[in-house]
Amino acid sequence: MLSKNTLKFIKSLQQKKFRKEEQSFFVEGSKNVTELLQSDFEVTHLLFTEKFASEFHHFIPDSGVALFEVSQKELENAGTFQSNDSALAVAKIKDNIPFDLKSNEWAIALDDVRDPGNLGTILRIADWYGINKLLISNESADIYNPKVLHASMGSFTRVAFFYTDLEAYFTKSNPVIYGAFLEGENIYDVNFGDGGIILMGNESNGISHKIGKQVNRKISIPKYGHAESLNVAIATSIICDNIRRQEHIQSKRLR
Amino acid sequence: MLSKNTLKFIKSLQQKKFRKEEQSFFVEGSKNVTELLQSDFEVTHLLFTEKFASEFHHFIPDSGVALFEVSQKELENAGTFQSNDSALAVAKIKDNIPFDLKSNEWAIALDDVRDPGNLGTILRIADWYGINKLLISNESADIYNPKVLHASMGSFTRVAFFYTDLEAYFTKSNPVIYGAFLEGENIYDVNFGDGGIILMGNESNGISHKIGKQVNRKISIPKYGHAESLNVAIATSIICDNIRRQEHIQSKRLR
Repeated sequence: MLSKNTLKFIKSLQQKKFRKEEQSFFVEGSKNVTELLQSDFEVTHLLFTEKFASEFHHFIPDSGVALFEVSQKELENAGTFQSNDSALAVAKIKDNIPFDLKSNEWAIALDDVRDPGNLGTILRIADWYGINKLLISNESADIYNPKVLHASMGSFTRVAFFYTDLEAYFTKSNPVIYGAFLEGENIYDVNFGDGGIILMGNESNGISHKIGKQVNRKISIPKYGHAESLNVAIATSIICDNIRRQEHIQSKRLR
Repeated sequence: MLSKNTLKFIKSLQQKKFRKEEQSFFVEGSKNVTELLQSDFEVTHLLFTEKFASEFHHFIPDSGVALFEVSQKELENAGTFQSNDSALAVAKIKDNIPFDLKSNEWAIALDDVRDPGNLGTILRIADWYGINKLLISNESADIYNPKVLHASMGSFTRVAFFYTDLEAYFTKSNPVIYGAFLEGENIYDVNFGDGGIILMGNESNGISHKIGKQVNRKISIPKYGHAESLNVAIATSIICDNIRRQEHIQSKRLR
């Protein structure tokens, strides 16, 4: 039986302030919930319908998690989905721990990416292209926002992320930074090395002036028509694809 | 002065039923409105704020369009934007006229793409990559939905679109069709010719069985990590990029 207090607690996690206070977040839907249950996140609450229980019973933990079998209506009332007939899970926020970048690996850095849908989609793209590290400027969207997690389709469990002051981080670690600008070297001609940072900027203003000064290579996606710009998640996917494509072509030549 | 009836008329256009009845649609925001005013669409009403008038006065037509200078509040009340301090324009829906495909040009076809944001983003991508023809299955989202037009960022004025029964259309015109599947030839290895159809499927189910049978080349975006899939707009952009990149590399070799 879901108490009023538990319901209130879950609902409060829609707001960043309370997520921070409680060091907790939630995800909804069978895809994100089953991914969360298989990850190293510490799950504290699981709300699920009879339908979820029959389809995914082997995902439901035996102990350590407060379990609530609820109706679809109760589930929809607790979360943000208009329609949810499967599950909702609450977990603890992870500590914000920096990671090291090896010179032969790729990471993505986001300078003030504000839209939750974009951040979530970028997580999914990073996961698809096997890029498992994401640096996020402190001004960017909160990764624990339900809209981010939903758009990530479970990929938030597989990509390591670190919120930081990018300028200070880059000053210290001094990586090779490929920055996406409207006026840069055509990505089709760029010789991408073995690794580095793919830096993407704000939806309206692009990469900020102060971070732009740290960029080693300014790169651009060539335009063939008349659209003014591309969405930042689309641009990220195209750059990741160009890097993997170049590796693929080079490894074919070596064979 | 905006009459109650005009306001009611504009508001009704949020629904497909009334757009069809009135053969009219609207767009919001300075980007889409100025693009619309520069296009060959027949604009019937223009609502604009003082701010829009001072910034974009040369876009405001002298005749043929019912002009209304309104407050920001009136504008927001008429449209779907939470915040709109610029403009809203109503225009006539274009006739649904088929176009011919030349063998040396590219077009995109959408088989049951339901999400308005995806359709709008695909318009923007097509426009970016200079692909100016879009075939849309009758089950797909309505291009005149305000969410589609908003996501297209003005590109709906530059890409020709035709709603049709794809199966019948392909049977008649018999084009080369590159269909995006999860299991197909790696796009990095595909030898794209001079033109053809880039066929994308439904968000959940991909390309339908009956249209799939008409595909000449099944193609796939290679996966390096663990995300289950890519969003359909992202996948479209990556395929377009691979085609343009291949042309770029080939033309460099010929030089």
